[in-house]
Amino acid sequence: MLFMVEMDVNIPLDFDPAEAARIKAEEKAYAAKLLADGTWRHLWRKVGLYSNVSIFDVESNAALHDLLMGLPLYPFMTMKVTPLCRHPSSIHDDDR
Amino acid sequence: MLFMVEMDVNIPLDFDPAEAARIKAEEKAYAAKLLADGTWRHLWRKVGLYSNVSIFDVESNAALHDLLMGLPLYPFMTMKVTPLCRHPSSIHDDDR
Amino acid sequence: MLFMVEMDVNIPLDFDPAEAARIKAEEKAYAAKLLADGTWRHLWRKVGLYSNVSIFDVESNAALHDLLMGLPLYPFMTMKVTPLCRHPSSIHDDDR
Amino acid sequence: MLFMVEMDVNIPLDFDPAEAARIKAEEKAYAAKLLADGTWRHLWRKVGLYSNVSIFDVESNAALHDLLMGLPLYPFMTMKVTPLCRHPSSIHDDDR
Amino acid sequence: MLFMVEMDVNIPLDFDPAEAARIKAEEKAYAAKLLADGTWRHLWRKVGLYSNVSIFDVESNAALHDLLMGLPLYPFMTMKVTPLCRHPSSIHDDDR
Amino acid sequence: MLFMVEMDVNIPLDFDPAEAARIKAEEKAYAAKLLADGTWRHLWRKVGLYSNVSIFDVESNAALHDLLMGLPLYPFMTMKVTPLCRHPSSIHDDDR
Amino acid sequence: MLFMVEMDVNIPLDFDPAEAARIKAEEKAYAAKLLADGTWRHLWRKVGLYSNVSIFDVESNAALHDLLMGLPLYPFMTMKVTPLCRHPSSIHDDDR
Amino acid sequence: MLFMVEMDVNIPLDFDPAEAARIKAEEKAYAAKLLADGTWRHLWRKVGLYSNVSIFDVESNAALHDLLMGLPLYPFMTMKVTPLCRHPSSIHDDDR
Amino acid sequence: MLFMVEMDVNIPLDFDPAEAARIKAEEKAYAAKLLADGTWRHLWRKVGLYSNVSIFDVESNAALHDLLMGLPLYPFMTMKVTPLCRHPSSIHDDDR
Amino acid sequence: MLFMVEMDVNIPLDFDPAEAARIKAEEKAYAAKLLADGTWRHLWRKVGLYSNVSIFDVESNAALHDLLMGLPLYPFMTMKVTPLCRHPSSIHDDDR
Repeated sequence: MLFMVEMDVNIPLDFDPAEAARIKAEEKAYAAKLLADGTWRHLWRKVGLYSNVSIFDVESNAALHDLLMGLPLYPFMTMKVTPLCRHPSSIHDDDR
Repeated sequence: MLFMVEMDVNIPLDFDPAEAARIKAEEKAYAAKLLADGTWRHLWRKVGLYSNVSIFDVESNAALHDLLMGLPLYPFMTMKVTPLCRHPSSIHDDDR
Repeated sequence: MLFMVEMDVNIPLDFDPAEAARIKAEEKAYAAKLLADGTWRHLWRKVGLYSNVSIFDVESNAALHDLLMGLPLYPFMTMKVTPLCRHPSSIHDDDR
Repeated sequence: MLFMVEMDVNIPLDFDPAEAARIKAEEKAYAAKLLADGTWRHLWRKVGLYSNVSIFDVESNAALHDLLMGLPLYPFMTMKVTPLCRHPSSIHDDDR
Repeated sequence: MLFMVEMDVNIPLDFDPAEAARIKAEEKAYAAKLLADGTWRHLWRKVGLYSNVSIFDVESNAALHDLLMGLPLYPFMTMKVTPLCRHPSSIHDDDR
Repeated sequence: MLFMVEMDVNIPLDFDPAEAARIKAEEKAYAAKLLADGTWRHLWRKVGLYSNVSIFDVESNAALHDLLMGLPLYPFMTMKVTPLCRHPSSIHDDDR
Repeated sequence: MLFMVEMDVNIPLDFDPAEAARIKAEEKAYAAKLLADGTWRHLWRKVGLYSNVSIFDVESNAALHDLLMGLPLYPFMTMKVTPLCRHPSSIHDDDR
Repeated sequence: MLFMVEMDVNIPLDFDPAEAARIKAEEKAYAAKLLADGTWRHLWRKVGLYSNVSIFDVESNAALHDLLMGLPLYPFMTMKVTPLCRHPSSIHDDDR
Repeated sequence: MLFMVEMDVNIPLDFDPAEAARIKAEEKAYAAKLLADGTWRHLWRKVGLYSNVSIFDVESNAALHDLLMGLPLYPFMTMKVTPLCRHPSSIHDDDR
Repeated sequence: MLFMVEMDVNIPLDFDPAEAARIKAEEKAYAAKLLADGTWRHLWRKVGLYSNVSIFDVESNAALHDLLMGLPLYPFMTMKVTPLCRHPSSIHDDDR
C-alpha cells in the first residue's frame, strides 16, 4: 500500500552542529535500510528546499506511523501524509 | 530531470457526458504513450480524490510545459509543479 | 485500517430538486449497506453544515478509494482523507 | 452530546525530557479515566503526526471546556473543536 | 448553551428578485419567532457585509443544527459555528 | 456603537507563573470595571481555547483602541476587530 | 471617525455591457456627492486591479454600513472594512 | 507617486524596555520629518492593533525602499506594500 | 522603474473559441509593441500553467495601471503586482 | 533553463551583528561570481522587504539545487522556486 509523505526539515539556527551531524548520520542509516528493503520506495529532494518527497510501501497505516515516528530527524520535521492507490491509466504492474 | 506534478481534475456537473468520455479516452491514450517511453515515470491516484501525483522525467522545463499543455484534460485541470533532484540519502542509481 | 473522511456536499441552487432527491435516496441506501457491515464505522453530521465526519474501516487504500468514488453524491462532494491508527493512550481493543 | 476535537501537540525541542515524560504520563492517566467512563468516546492518532482525533460525549459546552482545559498537555496543544450531531443516514442508535 | 454562528449570505446576481424578496420575508418571520423566545439571543450585522454575528441559546447541538437547517436563506449561506461557554471574568449571571 | 473583538491569549511556556498570575488578576479587575459600566457588553469563552468573543459598546473607534491597548494581557494577545451595527431583523431595541 | 474600506469589483464576463455602464455611471455620481461633502475622504485605485482603497469619515458604524449598502456596484463587490484611529506619531490635526 | 504601506510591529516580550523606548523615540522623530515634508502623506492606526496604514508620496520605487529600510523599527516590522494611482471617480486634484 | 507582474489567465470552458482566438491575437500584438519598445522588459511562462511572470519598466504607477488595464485579456486575468528596485548585490548597471 | 527563485531573508533580532555582516559579505561575493558568469541572470529587491526576485539560468534542477544550498545566507532564507520557459508572445531570442 503506497503513501506519499512530504517532509520539511527545520533545524534551529542555534542547534549544536555536532549533534545535528550525528542525528543526520543516524537518519541516513535509518533511511538506507528502508530504501534497501523497498519499504521506502522513492526519495527525492525538492529543489532549493530542505524538504523531500517520499513514497512508502507499507502493510498498514500503523506500520507507516511507526516507521515515521522512528525517524531520527522526526522532532525537526513537519509532515504531510497522502494515501495513494493505483491510477486507472497506469501501465506499470507494480505502480500500486 | 525529474518533476513532481500534482493534477486536480474538475469537470463541471453539466458537461456533456459523451464529450467527457471522449476526452478521458484521449487522455488515457496520451498518458499511455508517455508512460511507455518512461517520460511519465510514475502515476498514482490520491485516495478519494479526482487527483493524481505524477513524476515526469524530461529534458527541460520547456519539454515539460509542452507535454502538460498537450494533455487532453488540461482545460479541466489545476496543476502544481515541483522540481525534484537526487536526495543525498538515495540509494537508487536512477532516482535522479 | 481506519481513515477519517470529511465530506462537504454542495448541490447547485439550480439543480433539479427531483433529481437531487433521487440521488440522496441512492446515497442513503449506499451508506446503509456499508454502515450495516461495519465498513462505514461512524457517521456524524457537522452542526449547521451540509458536511459529515466519517470513520471507515477498510482493507486497503484502494478499497477506500473505490468505496468513495462509488458514492452517488460524489460529484457534489469535496473530500478530505486522513489516515488514522491506534493511539497509545487508547483503552478500546477495537479502536484500531 | 458529541464533539470532535483535533489536538496537535508541540513540545519544544529544548524542553526538559524528564518533565515531558512526567506530563505525558499524567496525560495518559487523565485520558484513561475519561475513556473508561465513556466521556472520551474515541481516540485515534493521525498517521505520521503528533496529533489526535477525539470524539467526546459531554453534557454541555462548559463540561467540554473544563475537561479540555484540564488536560496535562493542554499548554502544548493547539485545538480545533467541531460540534457534531446525528446524521440522518446513521443506523446506529447511539451515534448521536 | 451558547453558540456563536457567523452567517454570510450570497444570493446570485441573476436570482429572481421577487423570489429573493419572498425568501427574505420568510427568513425575517422565522428569525422574529426565535428572537422573541430567546433562542436567537443576539443578532448583529457586520458593517459593510451581507453577514451577521448571531448568538444562539439552545438545549443541544442537535437543536442548533435543526434550527439552522430550517433557515429559509440556508441554501444561500456559508456558516461558521463556534461553541461558547461562560468566561471566568464574566460578571453577568446569565452570560452562560 | 458596537464592535466584536476576538482575543487569543498566548503566554509563553517559560513565562514566570507568578508574574502571569499577577497580570491575569489585573486583567480581571480591568475587565470587571468595564463589564460593570456596560462598555464591555458581553464576554464569552470559546470552548477549548484560551480565546474570547467580546462585544464592546463604545463612543468611537479611538475609545475602543485606548480600551484595548490598556488591557494588562494585551502584549500576549492577538486581536480581530469587527465593527457591528443593528441587523434589520433584530427585535431588541438596544441591539444597536 | 475614520474607516479604511477596500473594495474589489467583479462584474461577470457575460453581464450586459450597457447595464454595467449604467450602474458604473450611477456609482460615479453616488461617489462624487460623498467625495464632495468629505464623507468619502480619499479614494485611490490599486495598480493593475479593479479594486480601490477608500477612507471614510462617518458618524457611526451604522452610517458607514448604510452608505456602503447604497453603492450601486455593491452587489458586484467584495469588501474589507478596517476601523482606524489617530496614530500617536501623526502631526496632522485632522488625521483623526 | 502614491503607495499604501501597512506595517505590523512586533517587539518580543523579553526585549529590553529601555532600548525599545529609545527605538520608538527615534521612529517618532524619523516619521515626524517625513510627515512634515509631505512624503509620509497619511498615517493612521488600525484599531486594537500595533499596526498602521500609511500613504507615501515618493519619486520612485527606490525612494520608497530606502525610506522604509531606514525606519528605526524596521527590524520589528512586517510590511505589505501596495502601489496606488488616481481613481477615475476621484474629484481631488491631488489624490494622485 | 521596475515592477514584477504575475498574470493568471482563466478563459471559461464554454467561451466562444473564435472570440477567444481573436482576443489572444490582439493580446499578442499589444504585447509585441510593448516588448519591442522595452516597456515590457521580460515575459516568461510558468511551466505547466496558463500564467506568466512579467517585468515592466515604466515611468510611474499610473503608467503601469493604464498599460495593464489595456491588455485585451485583462477581463480574464488575475494579477499580482510587486514593485521592485535595484538589489545592493546587483552588478548589472541597468538592473534598476 | 530558467527558474524564478523568490528568497525571503530573516535574521533573528539577537543574532550577532558582526557574524551577520561576515555572512552577508560572503553572500555578496558568492552572488557576484554567479551574476558575472550569467548563471544568476537577474536579481531585484522587492520594495520594502528583505526579499529578492531572482532569475537563474542553469543546466538542470540539480545544478540549481546545489547553487541555492551553497548560498551563505541559506540557513536564514525561505525559498519559493518556479520553473519558467519561453512565452509564446516573447520577442527576445534569449528569453528562454
